[in-house]
Amino acid sequence: IYPVVKTSKATIPFETRAQQAPCEVSKLLLKLMARKKSNLCVAVDVDQANDLIDLAKLLAPHICILKTHADLTKNFTGEISRQLHALAKQADFMVLEDRKFADIGNTVAKQYSGGCFEVSRWADLVTVHSLPGDGIVKALEEENAKIEEPRGCFLLAEMSSEGNLITTEYIKGSTQMASKFPKTVAGLVCQSLLLADQPGIVQLTPGVRRGEIKEDSLGQRWVTPEEAVIEKGGDVIVVGRGITGAKCPEKEAKLYQEELWAAYEKRIAI
Amino acid sequence: IYPVVKTSKATIPFETRAQQAPCEVSKLLLKLMARKKSNLCVAVDVDQANDLIDLAKLLAPHICILKTHADLTKNFTGEISRQLHALAKQADFMVLEDRKFADIGNTVAKQYSGGCFEVSRWADLVTVHSLPGDGIVKALEEENAKIEEPRGCFLLAEMSSEGNLITTEYIKGSTQMASKFPKTVAGLVCQSLLLADQPGIVQLTPGVRRGEIKEDSLGQRWVTPEEAVIEKGGDVIVVGRGITGAKCPEKEAKLYQEELWAAYEKRIAI
Repeated sequence: IYPVVKTSKATIPFETRAQQAPCEVSKLLLKLMARKKSNLCVAVDVDQANDLIDLAKLLAPHICILKTHADLTKNFTGEISRQLHALAKQADFMVLEDRKFADIGNTVAKQYSGGCFEVSRWADLVTVHSLPGDGIVKALEEENAKIEEPRGCFLLAEMSSEGNLITTEYIKGSTQMASKFPKTVAGLVCQSLLLADQPGIVQLTPGVRRGEIKEDSLGQRWVTPEEAVIEKGGDVIVVGRGITGAKCPEKEAKLYQEELWAAYEKRIAI
Repeated sequence: IYPVVKTSKATIPFETRAQQAPCEVSKLLLKLMARKKSNLCVAVDVDQANDLIDLAKLLAPHICILKTHADLTKNFTGEISRQLHALAKQADFMVLEDRKFADIGNTVAKQYSGGCFEVSRWADLVTVHSLPGDGIVKALEEENAKIEEPRGCFLLAEMSSEGNLITTEYIKGSTQMASKFPKTVAGLVCQSLLLADQPGIVQLTPGVRRGEIKEDSLGQRWVTPEEAVIEKGGDVIVVGRGITGAKCPEKEAKLYQEELWAAYEKRIAI
């Protein structure tokens, strides 16, 4: 079954989609992916900030996005975020802080630009739940206007965890919100091809792992790289423990990069 | 219109409800509220950690809960959280870190116990979105088993922001989740009386403000204290800018405390 049909954005090459993207970060990301031949995003969830930087350096050649959770890494200071930001510019990848903002606009504005992390200074992209309504994206858009570099967000339209409360109606709400803020919403986090007629909307698909393990004890489920790219329509594929928990993360990242890129090439040839 | 009817938990005094609560933190909180005659929670969203501690000291006599957003306050270090925790014990209030956890269980477990904030060490309570499914509460429950002090969470069953995507079905999912984890879920964040037959479930109702302002520019809406307690059934009422933005926050907190407690007494007399 290939729900990814010829008429959808999924079969258009990233370079072409970049030209049609209304969001500046989305445009830059799609170009970066084409240039680097990588649709791999690695989720780096490590205890120590130094390990985060070391891993980022190792994985840099193979990724288009490095995904962080600033608040689960000890010593994630301003110095660390500056290092990460500089490394990303130098090694040509983007940083996505997977904050899953989920509060009212006024609070999110402060969490995004202020506080300990000053996320908007170093993260090209952040993840945002559409649950609280338009105010959350509006808040980011207002904060982004204060930053010189292009900034954007991914809206969570679906989740892969077991028993999640996302319905068809919820998904519709998220896609409508994405369409309403084309300059700020760079893409959707989802498990299936949504907004198939909007080439600028990048689909970020997590829950992917090579090999046999399909579920963990806290309800997280995984699919294979080819399923994620070809069946689900994922543009950027997020891999976490499958790479960071490997004996040699760099080698494993290379394997994922190749397998994911091959799946993408197969997809655009449909 | 009083939707709070005689047969619901809303007309039972907090002391009585405390005896029936299966969640240890909920039990302690209800007792604390009755002892202190306070159903006021103040949301302290300040830039500087020192201001947070100063405000907490000022407001302490009038509140049952102090609500924080660790990540929007600069310099929110381990030292600050220890001070806050000690102050809470000494001045008899609880700390609720309004983290709005909204990720898969494995990630939330680390965000809750580890990282920069080590939230589980100092926050009696945290807020959690039910969106990701059971795994998120299961993760907290597993982490709580490692802590000696009682810990719990509030599930977000509703939001007050404009255009939010919460439906009747979503609310049902949240209340079912609350009933499934009675030891860990201390209550619900909502705008209406849910689980009216479960006295142990404390209803936290935000979006309350005395006076005239009804909406901000980012879609946040407010109701009056009496509406929140009597019409909506709120047990603990969250006030933010209405108090922290006042000329004299302490005086304002006292006014809120009195007005909210009077509304509660009116409610249990129904």
